[in-house]
Amino acid sequence: MREELVLHEDPRSGNCYKIRLTAALLGLPLQRIDYDILRGETRTPDFLSKINAHGRIPVLQVGTRFLPESNAACWYLADGAEGADGVGLIPEDRFARAEMLRWMFFEQYSHEPNIATLRFWLLYVGEANLAPQQREQILMKRAGGEEALRQMNEHLATRDWFVGEAVSLADIILFAYTHVAEAGGFRLSDYPAICAWLHRVAALPGFVAMDAP
Amino acid sequence: MREELVLHEDPRSGNCYKIRLTAALLGLPLQRIDYDILRGETRTPDFLSKINAHGRIPVLQVGTRFLPESNAACWYLADGAEGADGVGLIPEDRFARAEMLRWMFFEQYSHEPNIATLRFWLLYVGEANLAPQQREQILMKRAGGEEALRQMNEHLATRDWFVGEAVSLADIILFAYTHVAEAGGFRLSDYPAICAWLHRVAALPGFVAMDAP
Repeated sequence: MREELVLHEDPRSGNCYKIRLTAALLGLPLQRIDYDILRGETRTPDFLSKINAHGRIPVLQVGTRFLPESNAACWYLADGAEGADGVGLIPEDRFARAEMLRWMFFEQYSHEPNIATLRFWLLYVGEANLAPQQREQILMKRAGGEEALRQMNEHLATRDWFVGEAVSLADIILFAYTHVAEAGGFRLSDYPAICAWLHRVAALPGFVAMDAP
Repeated sequence: MREELVLHEDPRSGNCYKIRLTAALLGLPLQRIDYDILRGETRTPDFLSKINAHGRIPVLQVGTRFLPESNAACWYLADGAEGADGVGLIPEDRFARAEMLRWMFFEQYSHEPNIATLRFWLLYVGEANLAPQQREQILMKRAGGEEALRQMNEHLATRDWFVGEAVSLADIILFAYTHVAEAGGFRLSDYPAICAWLHRVAALPGFVAMDAP
């Protein structure tokens, strides 16, 4: 028997959306419980004691167990699962599997801390409300985000998907914050290979948009 | 036939050491080619065209293919491999495998950017030589690093290893920069459960020290 899957999330977070998109592409049912991070709903004693002592989302609940870290949650869903076409999101080949993880670690190290953070600051916190320490980081994060997009664009210039000949978790995970990067002040039209790839991901069977209910 | 493994590295980097330690615990032979990042040896036209267009190390070379990102390289080595005792570094259980990845993503997101960066700045660049923009980040990185160590210490207070009942890649990867965190100005004696765990890792059969030739 498959254990029930519950996603503890803020629907505006790209890290949460990755997990919903992975589940949708694999046809896995996923219950959703929403929290408003701007109102501190992941810092309540109840959340900290039951869901995640570190006060962060997303958390994927599998039966009675809890898994933080968005990319680990996507891996869990895809590990051993198959999509509607009988093809999974984790490559069978050992080197390709490691290459997929390479782009997943790139996303958490070089992409998310720049692009997702700027989107959060500019779209949800508001530039006028930033602390001086945050304001001082804007230029650095802008440069880091542009460099991440440049590397992605260069990689995609000669291929359709990040790894091998098919979509994998690397594409799903990088799609989440890339497709909304303009809210962080990035101009996606500067990166034509990325734009073409975003369209390929959005055309996948089972695709769901970030704001889908 | 197993393909030849070559590690392109700077031996002072914890991200490179992770890969050496993983290979050593699994008994895998690994050739080493050294670069001095402080002298820009990973930014030469030759390095950029042949090893990694992004100018970063470590890069694991597998035959004629190149794999950047330290944690992806460790995964590649451990995927399907067994140590001397017949036990591998990736758990067999699906949920435990995802939990291992959870700590590997934690390491790249919450640990390395704080603890490894402060070590690099204070030990190799020197506080007097930091750019003003770097100096402004010290307090933030100090707080982020202490929080990462606090979470690790809390997790290890009730168990010997990060995941399940045995050592996994999560331990190897977190060991790399934790055991030298004092060079970044952190006091490990504040974290007794971490200290006990560091001793357990260092006692593993096949363990090699960071400065081993």
